[in-house]
Amino acid sequence: MDKFAEICKKIKNMEIRGAEEVAKAAVRALMIKSGENSVKKLVSLRPTEPCLVNAVNFVKSDPKRLGPVALNHFTEADKKIAEYGAKTIEDGMIVFTHCHSTNVMGILKEAKRQGKKFELHNTETRPLLQGRITAKEMASIGIKVKHYVDSAARFALKKADLFFFGADAVTTEGKVINKIGTEMFAEIADKYDIPAYCCTDSWKYDPKTVFGFMEPIESRGAKEVWDKPPKNVEIVNLAFERVDPKLITAIISELGVYSPDLFLDGVKTTYPFLR
Amino acid sequence: MDKFAEICKKIKNMEIRGAEEVAKAAVRALMIKSGENSVKKLVSLRPTEPCLVNAVNFVKSDPKRLGPVALNHFTEADKKIAEYGAKTIEDGMIVFTHCHSTNVMGILKEAKRQGKKFELHNTETRPLLQGRITAKEMASIGIKVKHYVDSAARFALKKADLFFFGADAVTTEGKVINKIGTEMFAEIADKYDIPAYCCTDSWKYDPKTVFGFMEPIESRGAKEVWDKPPKNVEIVNLAFERVDPKLITAIISELGVYSPDLFLDGVKTTYPFLR
Amino acid sequence: MDKFAEICKKIKNMEIRGAEEVAKAAVRALMIKSGENSVKKLVSLRPTEPCLVNAVNFVKSDPKRLGPVALNHFTEADKKIAEYGAKTIEDGMIVFTHCHSTNVMGILKEAKRQGKKFELHNTETRPLLQGRITAKEMASIGIKVKHYVDSAARFALKKADLFFFGADAVTTEGKVINKIGTEMFAEIADKYDIPAYCCTDSWKYDPKTVFGFMEPIESRGAKEVWDKPPKNVEIVNLAFERVDPKLITAIISELGVYSPDLFLDGVKTTYPFLR
Amino acid sequence: MDKFAEICKKIKNMEIRGAEEVAKAAVRALMIKSGENSVKKLVSLRPTEPCLVNAVNFVKSDPKRLGPVALNHFTEADKKIAEYGAKTIEDGMIVFTHCHSTNVMGILKEAKRQGKKFELHNTETRPLLQGRITAKEMASIGIKVKHYVDSAARFALKKADLFFFGADAVTTEGKVINKIGTEMFAEIADKYDIPAYCCTDSWKYDPKTVFGFMEPIESRGAKEVWDKPPKNVEIVNLAFERVDPKLITAIISELGVYSPDLFLDGVKTTYPFLR
Amino acid sequence: MDKFAEICKKIKNMEIRGAEEVAKAAVRALMIKSGENSVKKLVSLRPTEPCLVNAVNFVKSDPKRLGPVALNHFTEADKKIAEYGAKTIEDGMIVFTHCHSTNVMGILKEAKRQGKKFELHNTETRPLLQGRITAKEMASIGIKVKHYVDSAARFALKKADLFFFGADAVTTEGKVINKIGTEMFAEIADKYDIPAYCCTDSWKYDPKTVFGFMEPIESRGAKEVWDKPPKNVEIVNLAFERVDPKLITAIISELGVYSPDLFLDGVKTTYPFLR
Amino acid sequence: MDKFAEICKKIKNMEIRGAEEVAKAAVRALMIKSGENSVKKLVSLRPTEPCLVNAVNFVKSDPKRLGPVALNHFTEADKKIAEYGAKTIEDGMIVFTHCHSTNVMGILKEAKRQGKKFELHNTETRPLLQGRITAKEMASIGIKVKHYVDSAARFALKKADLFFFGADAVTTEGKVINKIGTEMFAEIADKYDIPAYCCTDSWKYDPKTVFGFMEPIESRGAKEVWDKPPKNVEIVNLAFERVDPKLITAIISELGVYSPDLFLDGVKTTYPFLR
Repeated sequence: MDKFAEICKKIKNMEIRGAEEVAKAAVRALMIKSGENSVKKLVSLRPTEPCLVNAVNFVKSDPKRLGPVALNHFTEADKKIAEYGAKTIEDGMIVFTHCHSTNVMGILKEAKRQGKKFELHNTETRPLLQGRITAKEMASIGIKVKHYVDSAARFALKKADLFFFGADAVTTEGKVINKIGTEMFAEIADKYDIPAYCCTDSWKYDPKTVFGFMEPIESRGAKEVWDKPPKNVEIVNLAFERVDPKLITAIISELGVYSPDLFLDGVKTTYPFLR
Repeated sequence: MDKFAEICKKIKNMEIRGAEEVAKAAVRALMIKSGENSVKKLVSLRPTEPCLVNAVNFVKSDPKRLGPVALNHFTEADKKIAEYGAKTIEDGMIVFTHCHSTNVMGILKEAKRQGKKFELHNTETRPLLQGRITAKEMASIGIKVKHYVDSAARFALKKADLFFFGADAVTTEGKVINKIGTEMFAEIADKYDIPAYCCTDSWKYDPKTVFGFMEPIESRGAKEVWDKPPKNVEIVNLAFERVDPKLITAIISELGVYSPDLFLDGVKTTYPFLR
Repeated sequence: MDKFAEICKKIKNMEIRGAEEVAKAAVRALMIKSGENSVKKLVSLRPTEPCLVNAVNFVKSDPKRLGPVALNHFTEADKKIAEYGAKTIEDGMIVFTHCHSTNVMGILKEAKRQGKKFELHNTETRPLLQGRITAKEMASIGIKVKHYVDSAARFALKKADLFFFGADAVTTEGKVINKIGTEMFAEIADKYDIPAYCCTDSWKYDPKTVFGFMEPIESRGAKEVWDKPPKNVEIVNLAFERVDPKLITAIISELGVYSPDLFLDGVKTTYPFLR
Repeated sequence: MDKFAEICKKIKNMEIRGAEEVAKAAVRALMIKSGENSVKKLVSLRPTEPCLVNAVNFVKSDPKRLGPVALNHFTEADKKIAEYGAKTIEDGMIVFTHCHSTNVMGILKEAKRQGKKFELHNTETRPLLQGRITAKEMASIGIKVKHYVDSAARFALKKADLFFFGADAVTTEGKVINKIGTEMFAEIADKYDIPAYCCTDSWKYDPKTVFGFMEPIESRGAKEVWDKPPKNVEIVNLAFERVDPKLITAIISELGVYSPDLFLDGVKTTYPFLR
Repeated sequence: MDKFAEICKKIKNMEIRGAEEVAKAAVRALMIKSGENSVKKLVSLRPTEPCLVNAVNFVKSDPKRLGPVALNHFTEADKKIAEYGAKTIEDGMIVFTHCHSTNVMGILKEAKRQGKKFELHNTETRPLLQGRITAKEMASIGIKVKHYVDSAARFALKKADLFFFGADAVTTEGKVINKIGTEMFAEIADKYDIPAYCCTDSWKYDPKTVFGFMEPIESRGAKEVWDKPPKNVEIVNLAFERVDPKLITAIISELGVYSPDLFLDGVKTTYPFLR
Repeated sequence: MDKFAEICKKIKNMEIRGAEEVAKAAVRALMIKSGENSVKKLVSLRPTEPCLVNAVNFVKSDPKRLGPVALNHFTEADKKIAEYGAKTIEDGMIVFTHCHSTNVMGILKEAKRQGKKFELHNTETRPLLQGRITAKEMASIGIKVKHYVDSAARFALKKADLFFFGADAVTTEGKVINKIGTEMFAEIADKYDIPAYCCTDSWKYDPKTVFGFMEPIESRGAKEVWDKPPKNVEIVNLAFERVDPKLITAIISELGVYSPDLFLDGVKTTYPFLR
């Protein structure tokens, strides 16, 4: 099996995971074997993963981008998001987060690095407990963490000053697809006027949704929730939910800190190939 | 150790658990050794447990009640709550519940016994997963159950027709103390106009709260949530929260189906000793 | 056929209509033939009509009431409701109403009689256009009326100072059953803080609902809406809907002007036979 | 009378009706007699009808557009709207609509053509009962329709998955002018988080509103509502109302599925002559 | 002039001020000259002042109450209100208040006396700046006060844990009449779920409102706001506004801590003469 | 001291006040001494004053603008804002405003000049009572003014048809920084669906906020509120607050009448140097 095929296989079987890693792998695959067929092949591996599709289109629309230009996009975007997001944190604040997002972590690390004093309150995020990864990672660099079960989120949020969350995809209506629970918590944040910032690389935008295409919500295996559920008990394990843009204060991306609508406008203007 | 002391010990060390069981044990203790001192002793074991205090006062206010009258209160109340609550369930409905409540279970069993066709959607209820007990018990008598992680409650509620939950205590302002998560879910139910019924024996009413006494919220051990949390991570494990009466459609008790205010009025009229 | 049977027949076949008229006819029937069997027969004719059932129980609980005492209840109640309700109207106000309610009309007539200057804005109330009866009757005594199609109710309400509506029944949870559209309009009134008063004889209270009994909503014939609907078109013609007590400022009854909860409390205290 | 004058007359006296038909007629008139004077004349016939004004400006800004280019705009836009909108409908859904909109009908037809299984619930839309036209047309192609009086819309909406409506005009603040009732129903849809899509050709955008010009609301004849209203009864027959953009999930136009703000931005970018 | 007439005069010309002082003076007047005529005279001096009317009726309904029983009512009620209210304050809390209320001050003093650590945040309360009196009095006993202009109340409330306010009257619908601004602030408190407690002697209840009587709102002189306003500028100086019961968590009175409805029920049961 | 230094000094010590006046002074300073160093010096005088920074960048990005072009910007913008805003006022309307804004005054003057009949209701705006300046100025040209204390704003707003306010700055998230009280009143306006228009020159936009920079809120001297507050009383005198864009119907600027998002988009397109 050639190297191109190898990468394709790893993307397909989830050996390579995470929107950013998958997108970078696709760029590297195109560096090995470019051309229309390779593009088609790569897109077919994860047709509902906007970040991969956008990276491929970025490269396709201008061959000079194939290589460092594309690969560096993510590193530079992560850095800018960290920088812009850190400005919203002030001394004494409590930041609330759900699940585990690289960009949220980046912001917190940058704020910590600048010497800001703040606490992180977070959920465990059942069923996979990614909240523990977040808690561990942040605690290890000296951020004080308070950790809650998911159903205590409303209690935790009432004391928070900011709510940060990531994104798996952003639709043309401004809806953010993120871990189940995000919209319920965004609704609570909205009720208490706590700013809810989605922190994400703008390439999570899914241009297909312009034409009414509904981003599907992944339903995952029952075992993640309950190993051997009794007869008559069906486990509904939706991994994500859609967050209404009216509940999102702003999207912090490499483009800046913008309302969902202006973020979408910025994406179209800055990356005309994202179509 | 005499039998009275033995019961006291079991109440104290939580060998006897559950508001109803504790209250019945206290009545049995008084049958062994009655009198002012016994009353004081029993109340001192769980001063914030209204059901025990109310049962003891019930007996104290009229000696004829010491015995079957007091012991039967719970059995009869449970039966009436099941009967009244079952009337609110119609064929084709989806009932949502959180945690595990004897009275909610009683209602569902009675509706099932009457041949009503409905589904139960419920949460796992971290950290102790009492939602699994609920799911198991209901599935075992043939009710179809859909089971969700707690953070998916909003998604589950949107499809539900009724939200049932229990009570650990009811305050004079009409607030219900129940498992953490109940108020967040009651808020979602309120948003979608899904009736939210608290199903409880009226002896959960706490008369001390008339005079501004604030029902305390129990904070439980970290280990229930995360066995060995890393340094810098504090586990906040609140077992309960207060549900605002404006989010409660009605309280289904042995007195009938009443708004929180009329429930409180009914308690005062029916049980003048609850003071 | 004897006179008792005749009245029963007229109640059954809807020759006698209107909650109040039906209740009075039942009292008159009992004056002809009293006794347990007559009571049962009368209640069986309209088991879901609280006013008839309450009138029959009123008489049954004390034989001295059989005759003028029962018959006068309605006349006196109507007079008091008109008197109390009229006090809420001030010069220059706009009153909004939906459908046709005897008690609402009574209030407006009384206010007009007192020389108050106000306008009535009302809906046509499809499908039976009872709003025209309301408009005609009020215009005939010199009240200025503005008349709207039902879907313009939000526009009309925004300019109104008061919203008056009647009741077909009141449940133990404080819900008012009234003409379809009432809850949608009460929601709009609530949004704009326009007081929404239910104007009704307290005997519309349905004591059966204490025990979880759900007041059924009558579905009426398609022809009322569309004489010959095409194939594949099903007419859903619900006559009533339930109005949530949180949307009702107060119930104006012969007992006074009370919140739904205090109204229910007043009914239980004043009319202990209503059970 | 020459052909140009004849078309003008028909536009003036409403023989030619419907925003799209009027706009196409204006284009055909300009094909007969072009020039500044003709443009002025045509605009003067319906100065508050954005679709006509926009079509005329489209042609005026580039003579090559005079003819098929302009005439085809509508056909192509209708097709795209049907295509994009149909994607939002999934099997088992209930679509709610009010009044009669060509673009909403187009979407439903396209979804039906694709074999999607869904129901349509709609209002009769007093006073002119355009809802019957909608019901008839959709039922005739095999869509199952449930038909309600307007005041039952809240009840109907609670069971719906989507709310589609048309537009007579869109202002620069993102407000949609549509049949009276639309905003009340959009408010109910918003409360229950039911997506509310405005389905419209983007040429309904009214550029005059950029400069604070308030789109007037047409008041129509009393007879449409009540043939011979009694004295003292004034019929208020507003044909339209403004729908606040915060109640509109997205506008489905030939440009795609966009929030009101991004729709407006798209119009300005795509059709720079719409000013 | 005799002593009775002298007191009457002082009540009339506002030499004696404050609901409680006026009521006590009326009782003292009746101790000098009792009888039906004296009662009528006293009530006529301030017909819209429920506290005076209730005190007079209290004495009238049972002559034994004329003297210390009536005079002590207020002292004892004030003490109980202070005691019950103080229980709601916990260490570290921020209490927000508007204007100047004897009962609110009593609660804060009692909490301070018990050694509780809390801050008071309050408004200046234009035009008469009673907020300064509150701030001064509380600061003088060592409570830390933060003082804001009225328009900053929303900012101040967001940081508060409790909102306390007094009452000039309570209506039968549960509305509290209090200083202008109270409802706006109660609405903000409601939005943020900050408990809003009305602290008042239950004799502020106005029984006339049972029958639809609308408590009038006093309009005070322009000079209080602006000494010499220019021509064309009308000063609207409403002293009070009505606070909707749905915005009031509970009323803290000598009867206990109750929802508005249960407070009203308690008043009727405890003081049957208040009619 | 040279003329350039003199202007700098006057800007620094607040002899020159008001965003527009300061910006014009800066332009005049650059006409005396242009160049990179002068630009830096001027920006350093008021780094958080977007209008000055934007004017300086306007001139810097194209030397031809140095002089009348820049100086005329404000005059022309003021005129356009007055013209567009005046169109939103209709005969019989009540306009509500808070504090004192040149652009709001301009709109009212223009509407008056056009012969429109309307009333102005406004607040006194403690602590500096700028509301009196507004009232005086408008009354002097014959507009009828009703003047309220700040805490009566909710009462005043309920009767108003429009709410106009100015801006000190606009952030990239669409938040408007304006006089304390503005957000509380915008929230009330939102509740009652009263259009809330921010009237401002688009150069109040602060481009720094794109990158997460938080516009600071100025805290002013205690003496403005209370000359000699007692010990233990801290005066919190925040001059401004942030108004959430979801509470702003539209921003009326020289660009037109646009939603906050479209306003921001317009600024970026029209003034690419504003970065």
